[in-house]
Amino acid sequence: MERLWDSLEKLRAKRPLVHNITNYVVMNTTANALLAIGASPIMAHSPEELNELVALADSMVINIGTLDSQWIYSMLMAAKLAKKMNKPVVLDPVGAGATKLRTETSSMILETGAVKVVKGNFGEILSLAGEFGKTKGVDSAVYDAERGKELAKTVALKYGVVVGITGPVDFVSNGKETYAIKGKVDVVKNVIDRVTGLGCMVSAIVGAFIAVEDPLIGTIAGMAAFKAASIEAAKEAQTPGMFHVKLYDWLYRINGRHIENDINIERID
Amino acid sequence: MERLWDSLEKLRAKRPLVHNITNYVVMNTTANALLAIGASPIMAHSPEELNELVALADSMVINIGTLDSQWIYSMLMAAKLAKKMNKPVVLDPVGAGATKLRTETSSMILETGAVKVVKGNFGEILSLAGEFGKTKGVDSAVYDAERGKELAKTVALKYGVVVGITGPVDFVSNGKETYAIKGKVDVVKNVIDRVTGLGCMVSAIVGAFIAVEDPLIGTIAGMAAFKAASIEAAKEAQTPGMFHVKLYDWLYRINGRHIENDINIERID
Amino acid sequence: MERLWDSLEKLRAKRPLVHNITNYVVMNTTANALLAIGASPIMAHSPEELNELVALADSMVINIGTLDSQWIYSMLMAAKLAKKMNKPVVLDPVGAGATKLRTETSSMILETGAVKVVKGNFGEILSLAGEFGKTKGVDSAVYDAERGKELAKTVALKYGVVVGITGPVDFVSNGKETYAIKGKVDVVKNVIDRVTGLGCMVSAIVGAFIAVEDPLIGTIAGMAAFKAASIEAAKEAQTPGMFHVKLYDWLYRINGRHIENDINIERID
Repeated sequence: MERLWDSLEKLRAKRPLVHNITNYVVMNTTANALLAIGASPIMAHSPEELNELVALADSMVINIGTLDSQWIYSMLMAAKLAKKMNKPVVLDPVGAGATKLRTETSSMILETGAVKVVKGNFGEILSLAGEFGKTKGVDSAVYDAERGKELAKTVALKYGVVVGITGPVDFVSNGKETYAIKGKVDVVKNVIDRVTGLGCMVSAIVGAFIAVEDPLIGTIAGMAAFKAASIEAAKEAQTPGMFHVKLYDWLYRINGRHIENDINIERID
Repeated sequence: MERLWDSLEKLRAKRPLVHNITNYVVMNTTANALLAIGASPIMAHSPEELNELVALADSMVINIGTLDSQWIYSMLMAAKLAKKMNKPVVLDPVGAGATKLRTETSSMILETGAVKVVKGNFGEILSLAGEFGKTKGVDSAVYDAERGKELAKTVALKYGVVVGITGPVDFVSNGKETYAIKGKVDVVKNVIDRVTGLGCMVSAIVGAFIAVEDPLIGTIAGMAAFKAASIEAAKEAQTPGMFHVKLYDWLYRINGRHIENDINIERID
Repeated sequence: MERLWDSLEKLRAKRPLVHNITNYVVMNTTANALLAIGASPIMAHSPEELNELVALADSMVINIGTLDSQWIYSMLMAAKLAKKMNKPVVLDPVGAGATKLRTETSSMILETGAVKVVKGNFGEILSLAGEFGKTKGVDSAVYDAERGKELAKTVALKYGVVVGITGPVDFVSNGKETYAIKGKVDVVKNVIDRVTGLGCMVSAIVGAFIAVEDPLIGTIAGMAAFKAASIEAAKEAQTPGMFHVKLYDWLYRINGRHIENDINIERID
C-alpha cells in the first residue's frame, strides 16, 4: 500500500477543486478539512450555477445531512451533471435508515449512476442494503465489526460502487476486493464520537482523493489518512474541543510516515 | 440541589437524542456542545421527515435565530408533532423583541402548547412579557438583575412554561418556584460576550437535560452545568478563540464536583 | 495613519451592530470575528424582518458565497433598504468570475447604489472589472501584485466605491487615492490559505469599521487590523487548526501598537 503516500502527495500537488453539496452543520468543518489536507473546496448548491461549477470541479461530494426538497433537487441535478461530465462523486448518505426521505434520496442519487463511492457509518450502509434498523441520531448506528466486511461487499456489488464504512475498523470494498483499515493504537475512543462532522470530513477527504486516484485506492487512502490524522490528534488531546482543533493541524501535517506508523491496511477478501 | 449531579449522570447514561431545528450560525456549535456533554444531536428541518424524527427523538430544541417562512413552517409543524407525541420542547426565541417576525413566531410556537421551557436573554424574555425594547443585536439585550426574578416568574405564569434567563446571574422559574444561579468566581466576563452561540448552547443543553428530568430541574441542571463549564474554561483561557475550544472540553469533563465548587443555586421565591 | 488606532478604539467604544447576509460556510466564523474585535453581529435574511433590522443596524455586510435565488432576493432587498436608510454596505463578491450567477449578482447589488466598499480577492475584483479568468475555487484566484494597484483603482472608479483586494499585499483604492497594506514579517504564508472564511472575516471586519469611519479609512483600518491579527496568530501557530483559534484571540487582543509593529501602509497613488 505504498501507493497511499503517493496519493497524498498527488493530492497536495494537484490541489483538486472539490465541489460540495453538503449539510449546514458541517460546511465549515469540511471546507476546513479539505483546505488542511491540501485540496480546494467550493460549497455551492444553486441550480443556476451548477453547470459551470461542475465543469470547474475535479470531483464532487454530496452529503444529505440536512436535506430538504430544494436541496434534493440540487443534489440530483448536480449528480446528473457530474455523470455527464465524468466527474467522480462521493455520496455520504447521512441518516439513511433513520427516515424514508433520507433512504429514498440516497437511492435516487445512486440511480443517477454518478456515484463512485458511498461512504457512511454502519447503520447508513445497512439501510442501503435494504435493512432498516433504528438509527440513534446520525452519528451512532450500532456498529458490528463482524458484519462490516460482508456489508461493504454486498452494497458495493448492489450499486456498482466502492463502499467505505467508518468505525473502529473501517471497511472498504469494490465488490471484488475488500480491505480493513485499523489504527495500530487505540487512542481515539474518548473523543471520536464527541465531535460532529467527523464522518462528513472523511467523505470530503475521500472526495479529494478520488480526484487524483481511482475510487478504490482513493477511498482507502482518504480513510487511512483521516484515521492517521485522528490518531495523531488524539495523542495530543483527549478532550473534544482541543482534539477537533488538532485534527485540522494533523490533516495538514500528516504524511506517509504517519500513515505507515499509525495504520494497518489489510486485504480481507 | 444534589439532584443536579444525578441529572448529569442520567444524561450521560441515556445519551438522549435531541432534535434541533436551529439557526445556521450555531448548528455546528450546538451539535458539538450536545456531543461534548454526552447527548446525541440531530439537526433536521424537512417537513417530509419530521414525523419520523420527532418519534425517534427524546426531546426537541427550537431556535429561531435565522428564521424565514420555510423554517417557521417546519418549526410549527415540529412543535405540533412534539406536542402530540409528548416530547418536551425548549424554545430559544433568539432576537424576540428585535423584530415583529421574531416576537410573533415565538408566540405562535408557544401557542402550540408543546413548549416546556423558554430559554432566552433578558431582552428576549422581556419581549415575551409584552414589553419591547431596542435589542442591540441578538446577543446583548440590557440585562437587569433586579427585574430578572419577577420577569422569569411573570413569563412562566403567562405561558405555563419554565423560563430560564441567562446573564451574569441566571434566573429560572416555573411560576411557583424561582431560582437564581450564580457563579462563585467572576472569571467569564472578558469572554462570555465574545463568542457567538453560547446562549444557543445553553438552550441545546437544557434540551438534553429535559429528556432525562422534569422541565424545572432539567433547566436548572442544564444552566448550572453550562455555567460551571464556562467558568472552568475561563480559568484556562481569557481570550475568545481558546475559551471557545476549552468550553467544549469542559462540557465533556464537567462533573458534580465542579458544579458544586463553581456554582451557587438559591431558591429566591 | 495614526487614525487607524483611533478607528479601532472607536469601534470598540461604539460596538456597532453589523447586519450580515452571508454564506452558510462562514456565518459562525464571521460572527465570532466580529464579536472578537468588538462589534455586535446579527445574521438575518428573512424579507419579513429586513426593514426593521436594517433600521437597527449600523452597517451591513453582503457576502454571496452560497447564494441562491431566495438569498439573492434578500440581498437586493436589504441593499435597497440600506441605501434608503443611509447605512453603509460592504459587498464581498465571493466567487465572482467563477459563475455568471455570481458575477451578475454582484453587479445587481452594486447597481442598487448602496455599496460603499467591495472587498474581494484578486480574481473576484478582476471579474468586476469585466475580465473573466478561470477561478479555482473561491479562495485562490491568481494573485498578481503588479496589477493590484491599477485593478483596485479601475474598479473603484467604475463603480464609485472603495475597493479592497486581499493578498500577500492588500490594495485599497477609492479611485483618487490608492494604498498598499503589507505585513512587515512573512509568517502567515503556511496557514493563510488553509482556513476557510478568512477573506469573509476581513469583509465582516471592514463592515464594522465603516460603521465608525468613512469607507476609505474604514477599509484600510479593517484590512490592517485583520492582517496584524493574522500575523500575531501565525507567530504563535503555524498549523491551520490552532492558527484559526489564535486568530480570534488576536482579533480580540490587537491594538494600535501591534498594527504599527506588524503592518506597513503606504500611499502608492
